[in-house]
Amino acid sequence: MPKFVLAPDSFKESMSAKEVCQAMEKGIRKVYPDAEIIHVPMADGGEGTTDSLVDATHGRKEVLKVQGPLPHQIVDAYYGILGDGKTAVIEMAQASGLMLVAPQERNPLITNTYGTGQLIKDALNHDIDTIIIGIGGSATVDGGMGMAQALGAIFLDKNGHELTGNGENLLKISQIDTTHLDPRLQKTQIIIASDVKNILTGPDGAAFVFGPQKGANPQQVQQLDQGLQHFANIIARDLGKQVDQIPGSGAAGGLGAGLLAFTNAKLQTGVEIVAQTVKLAEKIAQADYVFTGEGGMDFQTKFGKTPFGVAQIAQKAGKPVFAEAGYLGERIEELYATGITAIFGIVDKAQSLEESLKAGPQNIARTTENIARLIKIN
Amino acid sequence: MPKFVLAPDSFKESMSAKEVCQAMEKGIRKVYPDAEIIHVPMADGGEGTTDSLVDATHGRKEVLKVQGPLPHQIVDAYYGILGDGKTAVIEMAQASGLMLVAPQERNPLITNTYGTGQLIKDALNHDIDTIIIGIGGSATVDGGMGMAQALGAIFLDKNGHELTGNGENLLKISQIDTTHLDPRLQKTQIIIASDVKNILTGPDGAAFVFGPQKGANPQQVQQLDQGLQHFANIIARDLGKQVDQIPGSGAAGGLGAGLLAFTNAKLQTGVEIVAQTVKLAEKIAQADYVFTGEGGMDFQTKFGKTPFGVAQIAQKAGKPVFAEAGYLGERIEELYATGITAIFGIVDKAQSLEESLKAGPQNIARTTENIARLIKIN
Repeated sequence: MPKFVLAPDSFKESMSAKEVCQAMEKGIRKVYPDAEIIHVPMADGGEGTTDSLVDATHGRKEVLKVQGPLPHQIVDAYYGILGDGKTAVIEMAQASGLMLVAPQERNPLITNTYGTGQLIKDALNHDIDTIIIGIGGSATVDGGMGMAQALGAIFLDKNGHELTGNGENLLKISQIDTTHLDPRLQKTQIIIASDVKNILTGPDGAAFVFGPQKGANPQQVQQLDQGLQHFANIIARDLGKQVDQIPGSGAAGGLGAGLLAFTNAKLQTGVEIVAQTVKLAEKIAQADYVFTGEGGMDFQTKFGKTPFGVAQIAQKAGKPVFAEAGYLGERIEELYATGITAIFGIVDKAQSLEESLKAGPQNIARTTENIARLIKIN
Repeated sequence: MPKFVLAPDSFKESMSAKEVCQAMEKGIRKVYPDAEIIHVPMADGGEGTTDSLVDATHGRKEVLKVQGPLPHQIVDAYYGILGDGKTAVIEMAQASGLMLVAPQERNPLITNTYGTGQLIKDALNHDIDTIIIGIGGSATVDGGMGMAQALGAIFLDKNGHELTGNGENLLKISQIDTTHLDPRLQKTQIIIASDVKNILTGPDGAAFVFGPQKGANPQQVQQLDQGLQHFANIIARDLGKQVDQIPGSGAAGGLGAGLLAFTNAKLQTGVEIVAQTVKLAEKIAQADYVFTGEGGMDFQTKFGKTPFGVAQIAQKAGKPVFAEAGYLGERIEELYATGITAIFGIVDKAQSLEESLKAGPQNIARTTENIARLIKIN
């Protein structure tokens, strides 16, 4: 009787990773009713990372009201505390995400990461020693200024007045006072989960590459880039850290840089962090077959998406990996070399996106059943 | 190095069976460059049967002008002469099909099978000894009266005047004169490929079940049913054959009955005829793996569609069969018991029908490649 590890990401707008695992198990059970099947809901640091890690470790969620991306905006957000009780998982998009701001209101001069700082602060109140923070999907280009402010940093202008953290005020910072920065940050390991390798400033930086999609016009992009450069200079002078040339410092509108400057943080690939946290390698070592998948897959999957991360671990262990996806894009054949044995689309017919999202669980179950039937003939 | 038999049906409006074979081979070659791969383009007696049998046996096509379903309509039609030079393959829909008549012109009182008779006659001119005739998709409910007329039968009314073969005139037949019926029919075996098991008359007969979709209103359905009953009575009296209660006699508006009455015909399941003609069982006996498929599959596939026929033969030989389809419908799990090892949808994403039809070849190639990759791990 073969052993299976199910390690999919979520299928965005269709199923959480946990639900994908359940649908996969349903398919396998039709063929191998008594198989040992281990669920390892996965994520890559993006949307769904908190849910997957909470599900995988039998942790819990903390729900709270924090400031949203816009000033005076209050949003309901949650973060996770994992089964070990010592690790928190935060998605910055929960508090400071682009999806929280209506398209016509998007303006990275005024949006900020203050709410993300509040989530970190709340996590610190729960006696944790590690925070995993996924920084994708931000509405902000504030360099993490808002986040730092929420954690006690004070930003002063040339007249000694305190500045509100946001994109526009970056250029006005004259001095940073970290005297009142939350002291618990010193003994807390912050792991930044990010696949974005952009540096903070310049043509490949946070403002130029990601500013426009957050609502900045060309002149504002210039202004934000200058602000981030100025911010990095002040950080170097007042905090003694050079953060602007580190790959990943430009992620989430420079929140990467801000976390590196104000906390004890390191950057790591999202799927690697998740895999370590859920002990995926140890589980795969015990398995005969591994299933993974994600809503959409294409050649870019190999730049750090979940199926790639799972495949890399399985490849080292010499285990076959079967991937399923609702959307198969360009050049998926490039994924075979990463360790993925075979990739199957789950869509059962020509249909609208809405229909296919709705049919996700049954399509996963059917496709998995048929892969299992194929495994069984051998 | 494994041996493969590729035995798909056509994917309607997307690929001929031959093109499906080519796309499947392309996928397998990526995994097994030197594999032995046998193409057996298949069909089930419906649309594409002539093409598949001509392709599978390296035969040829004969193109000619014949009468269409409507009086005075001339259509270009073709039939096949197989590689053995002794077997013709005719699809009645080529001459007498519903697709040849615009919806507003559909009227089974006047449509007729005369053109189908002309195709048979032309085949007889080519010194063949067997005619396989697929009788799906007809525009007619003439009991094969038109077909018989084209082959020399004379239908007289009560005044001794010759009647034109069509649905309306069935009731007017007073006598059938077969003196001038083409004598070559006596030494020609006609094999009717049909999955329709309906008898000629009554509630399950040709008029009631299929008349409405061919344009008959309820009163005309009654009239046609009475005509077919009368026709069967005259056949019994003048030709000494009881054809109205034979399952399949009601196929193609009663053309089944007409062929049974006027020719040396037997009814057989379409996919069985095709499989015998292309020697599928012998080829599968030499193979390790069999691929099949059809544009759409669901539980009804087991009522005589190509993947079912292929699976039945492979099951007897103990060979695994992998099926691919662009449309997976209801209860496909009922097909596993028929011998199909696994079924995969080929659609790569939510998309329109038009897009999915266009992407057929690449989707077949990709899906087949991934099945082959899965085969290879074992």
